[in-house]
Amino acid sequence: MVDRIAAGAQAPGFYRFKVGEIEVIALHEGVLVRDRPTGFVPNATHEEVGEAYAAAGMARDKLTITFNALAVRTAGRVVLIDTGLGEFGPPGTGQLLGNLAAAGIQPGEVSAVVISHFHADHILGVNRKDGQPTFPNAEIFVPAKEWDFWMDDAQMDAAPEAAKENFGLCRQVFGKLAETVRRYAWDEEFLPGLTSVRANGHTPGMSAIRITSAGETMMFVADITNNPLVFVRHPEWQAMFDMDPVETIATRKRILDMAAAEKLRVSFYHAPFPATGYIVKNSSGYEFLPALWHAD
Amino acid sequence: MVDRIAAGAQAPGFYRFKVGEIEVIALHEGVLVRDRPTGFVPNATHEEVGEAYAAAGMARDKLTITFNALAVRTAGRVVLIDTGLGEFGPPGTGQLLGNLAAAGIQPGEVSAVVISHFHADHILGVNRKDGQPTFPNAEIFVPAKEWDFWMDDAQMDAAPEAAKENFGLCRQVFGKLAETVRRYAWDEEFLPGLTSVRANGHTPGMSAIRITSAGETMMFVADITNNPLVFVRHPEWQAMFDMDPVETIATRKRILDMAAAEKLRVSFYHAPFPATGYIVKNSSGYEFLPALWHAD
Repeated sequence: MVDRIAAGAQAPGFYRFKVGEIEVIALHEGVLVRDRPTGFVPNATHEEVGEAYAAAGMARDKLTITFNALAVRTAGRVVLIDTGLGEFGPPGTGQLLGNLAAAGIQPGEVSAVVISHFHADHILGVNRKDGQPTFPNAEIFVPAKEWDFWMDDAQMDAAPEAAKENFGLCRQVFGKLAETVRRYAWDEEFLPGLTSVRANGHTPGMSAIRITSAGETMMFVADITNNPLVFVRHPEWQAMFDMDPVETIATRKRILDMAAAEKLRVSFYHAPFPATGYIVKNSSGYEFLPALWHAD
Repeated sequence: MVDRIAAGAQAPGFYRFKVGEIEVIALHEGVLVRDRPTGFVPNATHEEVGEAYAAAGMARDKLTITFNALAVRTAGRVVLIDTGLGEFGPPGTGQLLGNLAAAGIQPGEVSAVVISHFHADHILGVNRKDGQPTFPNAEIFVPAKEWDFWMDDAQMDAAPEAAKENFGLCRQVFGKLAETVRRYAWDEEFLPGLTSVRANGHTPGMSAIRITSAGETMMFVADITNNPLVFVRHPEWQAMFDMDPVETIATRKRILDMAAAEKLRVSFYHAPFPATGYIVKNSSGYEFLPALWHAD
């Protein structure tokens, strides 16, 4: 139990649940609210999108983005899936390390960091501002196809100007790691119980992660949607963050179908904390059902 | 921030939010899962009810009940709304005091306990097993009409055998308090910023509580539904716990309409923790939208 939380402090943003014999911990990284740009969903009107945000309980004219990583703890090993923005994000973000500590895990205990894809909010926490690794004892696992795309200078040179920034961030984060990073393939069980699932579209090499233990399976679905309260209900909607809109939608439907058919627990990076639940398919599309919170 | 949580412990079940200048704290009391009896919803089939539970992400054949009270903290005063089952509940319940402590509040700091209605899961926490008051410095506020009904021996004598148990529990809880209990009327601001709202039907005197500060208002809606994920979507469904089914449905719709029209934040006693969100009215009824979790 808790010994003491400072008066007025929020409960820590972690939430534990079991998958077979593995403990999985949802880790809140923060919330960002900003004005929603026109064209955020290129294939829907600004009004339709506003209506969908309001229907999900969020501000109609804002873009509300929540960030939630995952830790997987087995005997003697902590695997972190995505790192958040670390010390580089705007106010409201950067809470992951504090919540990891609240869950009883120090950065040095993390033995593996698994990256789903190379967008800033998933990778910037790999290093600290002083350039040192945030998780000094962790092997870094990245999707091979993501590495091949973002670390290719020819791709960077060919990219539109607005897209060049993220190529630069990838070099900032991974530049020193080329010799040591572990590049995992799709459908590879790259750590015991952790198997990658092809989830390209949002980025060229994004991977979802199936987590299996003792006959139970869940899936970290990364960014197959931005906020699932909006995009699971509107599976055809593209978001401006999606690099290949057509492939994004195909991947989204394939993975949502998989989750619904197998009744898998899923965790979304951009769902409201604790960001875990189930997918059901219905006549108009899909629905994301948050899992019931319970203490044990 | 958190100093230390024992390895493996769940995050504490409290969640803070602001209403004007008041701090409101959702307090988890526990979860109970049991086989759902046939006839739980007398005006729907067992299959329809199972379908609704499954559609809300819960087990189809179980009755999943979650319990969540509320604390309201203003300068120098902590008001607790409903007490949970205290030391008298089944395994999985009785977590309220621990979560209150995790939020930094000791029982002696509670200066008022407000009871919404006299069902066991709302009142048993008033006293400890040794008969002493759980909150030794608290005035107890109860709905006047609830007191008048349950503490009336003629009503007890006239009640069906199965209903007599709750009359007995009311005497166990309130027997010694007849001289000191504060009986509040409907529409009375019985504490600064706390105003009762008629919510009878589930029990003869149930009250919802409007909480107002600095121009903002929320409403604790008590048991106008059992789990709102089911009964907000099916506002005509009666539950076997509802003493006057017709009045229950009328009250439910009146209060859901009020919440939707005023865009009030609501807290349900039986919603999944943190049990707070918003009501929208749609073509087929209503929807409960959980509020986005955030750290500040």
